[in-house]
Amino acid sequence: MLALCAPARAESGLPFETLVAVCTSCHGEDGSTHLVPSWGRIDGQNREYLVYALKLYRANGRRGMNGGLMMPYAMTLSDREIERLATHFSNF
Amino acid sequence: MLALCAPARAESGLPFETLVAVCTSCHGEDGSTHLVPSWGRIDGQNREYLVYALKLYRANGRRGMNGGLMMPYAMTLSDREIERLATHFSNF
Repeated sequence: MLALCAPARAESGLPFETLVAVCTSCHGEDGSTHLVPSWGRIDGQNREYLVYALKLYRANGRRGMNGGLMMPYAMTLSDREIERLATHFSNF
Repeated sequence: MLALCAPARAESGLPFETLVAVCTSCHGEDGSTHLVPSWGRIDGQNREYLVYALKLYRANGRRGMNGGLMMPYAMTLSDREIERLATHFSNF
């Protein structure tokens, strides 16, 4: 509900390839996140779950270390950018 | 930090196969969670991430619908049970 009630966000203004590169800098080129095992794999994850998780991070609805890391990144993203990124990584 | 500071929990007292069955009733026999796309795949997920996520759900550190669903299940689990389940599904 929190995510659904959040106000619409502006686009980051960054090229999509740059947004992908932000993700892959931690999650790896293939999204498998082998670098840090306490972070989640996003490759092949359900698209709708990725949308849900990114919106929840953006709304500061996830605590813990990962929430602290992800929230500022997610805050830069619009709904549309979140949906494009979710499609991208769900297809890996 | 929230998860690390939570008090130790007692075992659920349920057989491990029963705990697995609780997980698979929603996430599917293979953990791929194709039933409901807004829920996460847990098959092949990084073990340490599964431990982290379950402890965070248990500590009510994740909001949103999934947090509401997962929290009561996670509250029944001890650290050891969480670690066993994480090992189980990370190996799928």
